[in-house]
Amino acid sequence: MRVYNFSAGPAMLPEPVLRTVQEELLDWHGIGSSIIEVSHRGKHFSEVIARAEADLRKLLSIPEDYAVLFLQGGATLQFSAIPMNLLGGGSADYVVTGAWSQKAFAEAQRIAPVLGGRVRLAGSTEESGFTRAPRPEELSLDPNARYVHVCTNETIHGVEWLELEALQASGVPLVADMSSHLLSRPIDVRRFGLIYAGAQKNIGPAGLTLVIVRRDLMASPWEGTPPVLRYDRMAENGSMLNTPPTFAIYVAGLVFQWLESLGGLAAMAQRNEAKARLLYECIDATPFYRNAVEPRWRSWMNVPFRLADESLNETFLQQAEAAGLKYLKGHKMVGGMRASIYNAMPLEGVEALAAFLRDFAVRHA
Amino acid sequence: MRVYNFSAGPAMLPEPVLRTVQEELLDWHGIGSSIIEVSHRGKHFSEVIARAEADLRKLLSIPEDYAVLFLQGGATLQFSAIPMNLLGGGSADYVVTGAWSQKAFAEAQRIAPVLGGRVRLAGSTEESGFTRAPRPEELSLDPNARYVHVCTNETIHGVEWLELEALQASGVPLVADMSSHLLSRPIDVRRFGLIYAGAQKNIGPAGLTLVIVRRDLMASPWEGTPPVLRYDRMAENGSMLNTPPTFAIYVAGLVFQWLESLGGLAAMAQRNEAKARLLYECIDATPFYRNAVEPRWRSWMNVPFRLADESLNETFLQQAEAAGLKYLKGHKMVGGMRASIYNAMPLEGVEALAAFLRDFAVRHA
Repeated sequence: MRVYNFSAGPAMLPEPVLRTVQEELLDWHGIGSSIIEVSHRGKHFSEVIARAEADLRKLLSIPEDYAVLFLQGGATLQFSAIPMNLLGGGSADYVVTGAWSQKAFAEAQRIAPVLGGRVRLAGSTEESGFTRAPRPEELSLDPNARYVHVCTNETIHGVEWLELEALQASGVPLVADMSSHLLSRPIDVRRFGLIYAGAQKNIGPAGLTLVIVRRDLMASPWEGTPPVLRYDRMAENGSMLNTPPTFAIYVAGLVFQWLESLGGLAAMAQRNEAKARLLYECIDATPFYRNAVEPRWRSWMNVPFRLADESLNETFLQQAEAAGLKYLKGHKMVGGMRASIYNAMPLEGVEALAAFLRDFAVRHA
Repeated sequence: MRVYNFSAGPAMLPEPVLRTVQEELLDWHGIGSSIIEVSHRGKHFSEVIARAEADLRKLLSIPEDYAVLFLQGGATLQFSAIPMNLLGGGSADYVVTGAWSQKAFAEAQRIAPVLGGRVRLAGSTEESGFTRAPRPEELSLDPNARYVHVCTNETIHGVEWLELEALQASGVPLVADMSSHLLSRPIDVRRFGLIYAGAQKNIGPAGLTLVIVRRDLMASPWEGTPPVLRYDRMAENGSMLNTPPTFAIYVAGLVFQWLESLGGLAAMAQRNEAKARLLYECIDATPFYRNAVEPRWRSWMNVPFRLADESLNETFLQQAEAAGLKYLKGHKMVGGMRASIYNAMPLEGVEALAAFLRDFAVRHA
């Protein structure tokens, strides 16, 4: 029996996608081999990756002047690769709104001098405990920066923000880590210079990283950049300068088809908003639970919360698991609980969690 | 119906492994989730990666003073990462015996000046058309080199060599790209400073790279090395500085168990030698076919061959495919045909190919 899996990532995948993978695993479309057993340059996998790219372009309305890259190494490797490709001996601005943008900034600080460039902290909400997006007046932006880096959904702190107008006033390209909410709702790709995401939340299995990058920004990578980290080389070679992670790309392609079959990202946004509202209403309904994020910036994807009486944490997790509600333990950095409710989490899973939350609060009040 | 798949990689996987993956795909060991849907830091995946490492250590008798790393980016990213981690401002020797060691050397030449070091060509068999290993007198080795790099099985040219004594006389650590023959036979890990391999031949799905490295060699990475490319950081973090490619590691672990169940690498060597002998005898039995590699250095894994009358190439490939013998077209760099007969290729597949070769030669002589 399948459980409701609230893991932050690697995370729940759509069951119809897993069933297709299962059916096709030994013999993909009658070719007598698994799709993971054939050459990435052969006609079968070429079809898979071409369709995956086309479907992703359709889902996100990605303009032709953006390249779509299927890479390896996770968002963490992009923390290094982004300055290698885009810094060009100049300066970049970083906005810190939680643990992941903080990590991206730390790596940029480390690597920038090696690249002959520099980075600036253009704003931080650390004093608030990472419970909100920065206010426009808190930002100190360099109009000559090569790019401004943000994380638009902080997986650990549960802060989501897409009101980025203040960052875009000067026309500096915006680079966004969207690892934990890409494909959860429509976005306007044209507002960004580069979007990146580890796949293991809303896209597919771990081991794949998506990069969507405006082509003119790829032109001047640092000379020491390893070839497979260069966006220009990967774009020229259809993400196949070397063997790509074929299984992860195949599954991501099936996820894209599944999203389209449900009505695309506008439909997903409705579903995700409804799921999130249900859960936050349940948390706010009693002082037994608490989510510290300012309501306006609460993530639809990652819902951290705490019990008022933390001595009940272990009991809570045990009883939740017994009820088929798994992996609710919060990240060790912040403690408490976290429910990650990505695209693949059905409304029924969130309803079951909400019912459990109410029941647990009554029984332990 | 499953076909005999002679793809050079991504390549045929053992059918019992694929069947296990298929059975467990929606519910791994009764946890109610797929193993690819759970946190890499949770107890389930921790068990998977720990067992995979333990089984690999047992198969290859890897000593404790070697780290085993499960990485991303393919052997191609290692072409950059190896000098980043090991060059240390010094010099390294490269021996070129085919397309892959040539690529490794080209990338080392490119990146060494960035790292403040240099590389030397310590020997090449290019003049022979890459049809043999270098003779000891053809090697020009620097006793002060930080390492000597070799590719012990050239996937495109079909040259395999493990008689490396001449390279080891000076005690310089040997770095070996074993992408296309690791796990095909026993090797003495102690003779190497570092062994690396893309998984998509004998190990598992694409998207995983194994690195086995003597711990003392990891001590002085170049300061600019991205954290996820640093062997020391990855070793300290059990290959989980960030999210690893969990599906590929899980499948590799099943492949390790399958190898152990068949008797380990000594048993695989017997099987692989028998398969290779059968195929080379068939090729040598008639001037209709030709393999150019000196018999002593012929690969057990990758068997390139040509038809004397190359106008028959398309007919050959079509009839082979109709007989369920697929992906025999040679690499575009060398043309002709290539049969890759990794661990997962059963003897019956090679027998079927040999029968087809004999029959085709008779019909078209």
